[in-house]
Amino acid sequence: MTVYNFCAGPAMLPPEVMKKAQQEFLNWQNLGVSVMEVSHRAQPYLEMVKECEASLRRLMDISDEFEVLFMHGGGRGQFAAVPLNLHLDDAPGVYVENGIWSSGATKEGAKFTQVEGINIRTDVDGQFDIQPVEQWKLPEKASFIHFCPNETIDGIEIYDVPKHDAPIVADMSSMILSREINVDDFDLIYAGAQKNIGPSGLCIVIVRKTLLEREGLPRPAILDYAIEAKQGSMYNTPPTFAWYLANEVFQYLESIGGVKAMEAHNKKKAAILYDYIDSSDFYSNKVAKHCRSLMNVPFWLKDDTLNDKFLSEAEAAGLLALEGHRFVGGMRASIYNAMPVEGIEALVAFMDKFAKENS
Amino acid sequence: MTVYNFCAGPAMLPPEVMKKAQQEFLNWQNLGVSVMEVSHRAQPYLEMVKECEASLRRLMDISDEFEVLFMHGGGRGQFAAVPLNLHLDDAPGVYVENGIWSSGATKEGAKFTQVEGINIRTDVDGQFDIQPVEQWKLPEKASFIHFCPNETIDGIEIYDVPKHDAPIVADMSSMILSREINVDDFDLIYAGAQKNIGPSGLCIVIVRKTLLEREGLPRPAILDYAIEAKQGSMYNTPPTFAWYLANEVFQYLESIGGVKAMEAHNKKKAAILYDYIDSSDFYSNKVAKHCRSLMNVPFWLKDDTLNDKFLSEAEAAGLLALEGHRFVGGMRASIYNAMPVEGIEALVAFMDKFAKENS
Repeated sequence: MTVYNFCAGPAMLPPEVMKKAQQEFLNWQNLGVSVMEVSHRAQPYLEMVKECEASLRRLMDISDEFEVLFMHGGGRGQFAAVPLNLHLDDAPGVYVENGIWSSGATKEGAKFTQVEGINIRTDVDGQFDIQPVEQWKLPEKASFIHFCPNETIDGIEIYDVPKHDAPIVADMSSMILSREINVDDFDLIYAGAQKNIGPSGLCIVIVRKTLLEREGLPRPAILDYAIEAKQGSMYNTPPTFAWYLANEVFQYLESIGGVKAMEAHNKKKAAILYDYIDSSDFYSNKVAKHCRSLMNVPFWLKDDTLNDKFLSEAEAAGLLALEGHRFVGGMRASIYNAMPVEGIEALVAFMDKFAKENS
Repeated sequence: MTVYNFCAGPAMLPPEVMKKAQQEFLNWQNLGVSVMEVSHRAQPYLEMVKECEASLRRLMDISDEFEVLFMHGGGRGQFAAVPLNLHLDDAPGVYVENGIWSSGATKEGAKFTQVEGINIRTDVDGQFDIQPVEQWKLPEKASFIHFCPNETIDGIEIYDVPKHDAPIVADMSSMILSREINVDDFDLIYAGAQKNIGPSGLCIVIVRKTLLEREGLPRPAILDYAIEAKQGSMYNTPPTFAWYLANEVFQYLESIGGVKAMEAHNKKKAAILYDYIDSSDFYSNKVAKHCRSLMNVPFWLKDDTLNDKFLSEAEAAGLLALEGHRFVGGMRASIYNAMPVEGIEALVAFMDKFAKENS
């Protein structure tokens, strides 16, 4: 049975990458040892990380005005790193809030610096919606503007980027490499690896070099952008296996057409699923169409007493990890880059069959 | 050709573990997906981490007075976490210094709290030595006493544990599970995984529960012991694959006799290597016998112009990563738990042949 894994993260990785990783698991680059047993300072590993950064720069068209860092700690680590590195004494960190992740960033920031939360949710009658970017009430003074372009739990995606004199910071953990963006519109991008990049435990940070001059606050070296930039992300031993797999994913993405191809692929997948849900009386999606996520599609059965039955039959059909987050209930299909169109088709076929059998 | 990898870290892992991990790389527990593609909150993963903790508790005889945490960030992350969690307003963090790692901890601690460094090195004529524990001049007042039982670069190991009213904190990154210790002699033990536990990117923290009540300083949630204890080390997505491999290593260690067996194994290996070095006029070890490391054996060729030749011939003979750290030069054999006796025998045979050919 073909299995499709809709986990919100750690998520499925491209099968081509996983097969190659398995093949060379015990013998990387003919060294006779696993990549995870090689020193991060050994020449073959240093060449790999150099190529990894170059590949990500090509994929996202990242200019020399930015450093690319490969850090410990995941997105939550960056919730602390951002205010610790970017703090200014005379301006608040401004956090745009539209869900659990963006609000979590505010709470973490408030431990270290003055924060101002800007709520952009405009839900009506239980339907999820947000203000368009041009209506956000951003204060004039800010040490940075933080937002989360994709909220995985609610399935809300922000497709525009705010403009402001303060640095624009984006938590792209759940949508990096899923569609084309203009990196120059941002000053700091970070992304936990475990959705579109690789295994958990690695976090990518793309930071404008001028920001490295900020003094910020006393902070752990492992969360210090200037130190990590100076040390090539090797101030301490990096998560070497995750970094290696990230490189394999980047090489694979380049080989199949890069982010442009991924965007077309992801739009096609999302359209199939949303179109089916919208055409159904049995399922619904609560998110306004202009801000529906390409990556995380929550849906609700009209009769939620059928939820357990739906989940157990889905699992028996090889459709895994469809349970919605406990905060919003229902179901959620996370359809990151590695999810093939066939997975969506299998899901829709199952949903349709289940609806017919239970209507 | 059999390859032996003497890398100081990321280090070699038990071949039995690596083979099993390769076999189930694409299909863990018959779920049809890799363990790194499974949610950390999925039942099979939660069962695995529960068993992982139980296994480590058995291996190290850790009582219920301690929490066991599985954290991001490696040992360097703990250089910050220790002072951030254990800071007291009216007492310094006391750091026992005997090498680069223990001094690095002091420097990181000084960012956040008042620190006092205690140098215990007593080198004479380029020979490395340290004061025995009972001679350490520890101040009466301390928020904690931090020391590093094994300094990987100099190859210095401290076999005793200081006694003090303040919590005793040990960086066991390079010697955890290598020999029997009494966990009750300590209040906080931490260890980056990449030597004796698993791949890099994971850090084990064993912390006395009473310490979780300290207020400490504002700190990143990913470095907050109380938060991680409360959340089962899942406040954010943990490094799931590294955690899984740590469990495999623990299960394997239990299957071959636990830490007691490891200690005998490690003492046997170290004795073979030190005895050979001491009997040789061609090589030397600079460390006083009472504090020689079981895990990292630095040695120097009397004629250091032969270093490059030694390294290239060693590599050709399948003996990898023997170059000493740039701070001390010479060679270093890191002989962690996973290194078999055969690896030491192969190294000694090579060293002897090289000495005869180049004397």
